[in-house]
Amino acid sequence: MSNPIRIAILGYGNLGRGVELAVRANEDMKLVAFFTRRDPASLKTNTPGVPVYHMDQLLEKKDEIDVLMLCGGSAKDLPVQSVEYAKYFNIVDSFDTHAKIPEHFAACDKSAAEGGKIALISVGWDPGMFSLQRLLGNCILPNGSDYTFWGKGVSQGHSDAIRRIDGVADAKQYTIPVDDALLRVRAGENPVLTTREKHIRECFVVAEDGADLARIETEIKTMPNYFADYDTIVHFISAEELALDHAGIPHGGFVMRSGVTGLNGETQQMIEYSLKLGSNPEFTASVLVCYARAAYRMNARGESGCKTVFDVPPALLSPKSGEELRKNLL
Amino acid sequence: MSNPIRIAILGYGNLGRGVELAVRANEDMKLVAFFTRRDPASLKTNTPGVPVYHMDQLLEKKDEIDVLMLCGGSAKDLPVQSVEYAKYFNIVDSFDTHAKIPEHFAACDKSAAEGGKIALISVGWDPGMFSLQRLLGNCILPNGSDYTFWGKGVSQGHSDAIRRIDGVADAKQYTIPVDDALLRVRAGENPVLTTREKHIRECFVVAEDGADLARIETEIKTMPNYFADYDTIVHFISAEELALDHAGIPHGGFVMRSGVTGLNGETQQMIEYSLKLGSNPEFTASVLVCYARAAYRMNARGESGCKTVFDVPPALLSPKSGEELRKNLL
Repeated sequence: MSNPIRIAILGYGNLGRGVELAVRANEDMKLVAFFTRRDPASLKTNTPGVPVYHMDQLLEKKDEIDVLMLCGGSAKDLPVQSVEYAKYFNIVDSFDTHAKIPEHFAACDKSAAEGGKIALISVGWDPGMFSLQRLLGNCILPNGSDYTFWGKGVSQGHSDAIRRIDGVADAKQYTIPVDDALLRVRAGENPVLTTREKHIRECFVVAEDGADLARIETEIKTMPNYFADYDTIVHFISAEELALDHAGIPHGGFVMRSGVTGLNGETQQMIEYSLKLGSNPEFTASVLVCYARAAYRMNARGESGCKTVFDVPPALLSPKSGEELRKNLL
Repeated sequence: MSNPIRIAILGYGNLGRGVELAVRANEDMKLVAFFTRRDPASLKTNTPGVPVYHMDQLLEKKDEIDVLMLCGGSAKDLPVQSVEYAKYFNIVDSFDTHAKIPEHFAACDKSAAEGGKIALISVGWDPGMFSLQRLLGNCILPNGSDYTFWGKGVSQGHSDAIRRIDGVADAKQYTIPVDDALLRVRAGENPVLTTREKHIRECFVVAEDGADLARIETEIKTMPNYFADYDTIVHFISAEELALDHAGIPHGGFVMRSGVTGLNGETQQMIEYSLKLGSNPEFTASVLVCYARAAYRMNARGESGCKTVFDVPPALLSPKSGEELRKNLL
């Protein structure tokens, strides 16, 4: 490609690393810089040719970047960074605190509109692809019910919650959809499911030497919000086992729309979308990167302000021309 | 709703009937007219209050219609009707002859652009929702393979082919995806599958009295293009059994994108979309109707020309505001 889309990454954790790799898989893009709040010299990336700068230098590099990928966390980083940088850059973020999306949208919209840039927020798989499937399902089958199941996969928030318990050295928590619930939804039963009926929580815990295992198990299982409303399974394992068998960050899930059509709602219709992800951050990053292409193109044709996956014409996600897409994928 | 979108239907077969019912499920729309090439007095619709006109009267009613739903066939009706009426109406069609889509697009684009209207073509589930999922899968996982399976469901074309055989009174053909193939794809094997390995064809045939069943079975199983490349199962049943057990028009299928991410493609990622449809035409109609909303809105904001599902920002499909969508579905 003669004029690749110039991508920069802010934040080099799992997601930033995923974006770095995803950019390589797209020939019309070029990774031009990493930015970090750490000492740039300390950052060892997988792309040695690409410079690492301190984030204080971001504005200096403004004209060399087409889209800035914000790879920080939703709790503290993105509410500040997305809003601030949308003034100067087309940005893509993966803000995933569902309840705060309207607020985040409003702040980013103001900032991006001011700067004449595109801020594409809450991109990834949930929010992101799952949201898109929920929207499509609702539009196609207005008479129906939505179901979203997550897993099997690692919940970082739940793993962290276990790690904060006294006597816990390390932990990993898997969210697992309950098979019976999936089957009932697929059968068109439209069940009303409790929290407990939808997901199981399975925990692999490394205890500190001499810790009271029974107390730890009780503290996990009774923890409000995180575990109390679920059937929770706790396994105590060694640090070696945790490192060997639970090093990955798999995830996935299901979005289902069960609806009816017909003269009197007599016809069952079922839409199901599912993901089985070997790596949650690598997949999320892959979604972010194709939406970066769309952000760049929307801005290039004069649009600005905050957008979500709901606002992006799908063809803008692809490096292929409309003609190629209609010929080969339609 | 104070200003509902005014929908008209041209062609009152299974799809037209489906559109009629789907419009009822959407409060922001109103069915204003049926058009038919038959004698209007002979048409018995499910909505007695809505007038039926001969299609020759279409242009007279131009100003009373926001979107014209073309519910004819892809072989003979749509190549003529979509192109002709896109000059005067926003239209939605379900043109599904994949190989001829580029040609149909070009003709509709010229016509719709001339008339300042939107022609939204090839809407439904394949082409349509399946196409959209193929596009998304390709964009997110550029390193991967596409799989589309159809069924279990009735193939009208294959049923018709059997009916043309001498000695056949009636027939219904089901396309069935091969379980083992689905499992291999889901396991991330990226198999190269032959036609025979992907789908089975199961036929329920009513023979005429005294017909040579063995000859009919052989003619079916050896029919080029339709059956010769498949494992085909033939059952002879009575007309009563056909009417009782095979009256519906179910369908469905699977779109899968199996891909890899990571430093050296070491991470497996799997996206799967599936439909289980009690009625193929009612589902297709439900998709057409939400795209009618989008066609109307795109035209209202000044766009014209031919579009496909690839060009439509998903939010335009929904009667809800952007704010509501972000709050409840993102």
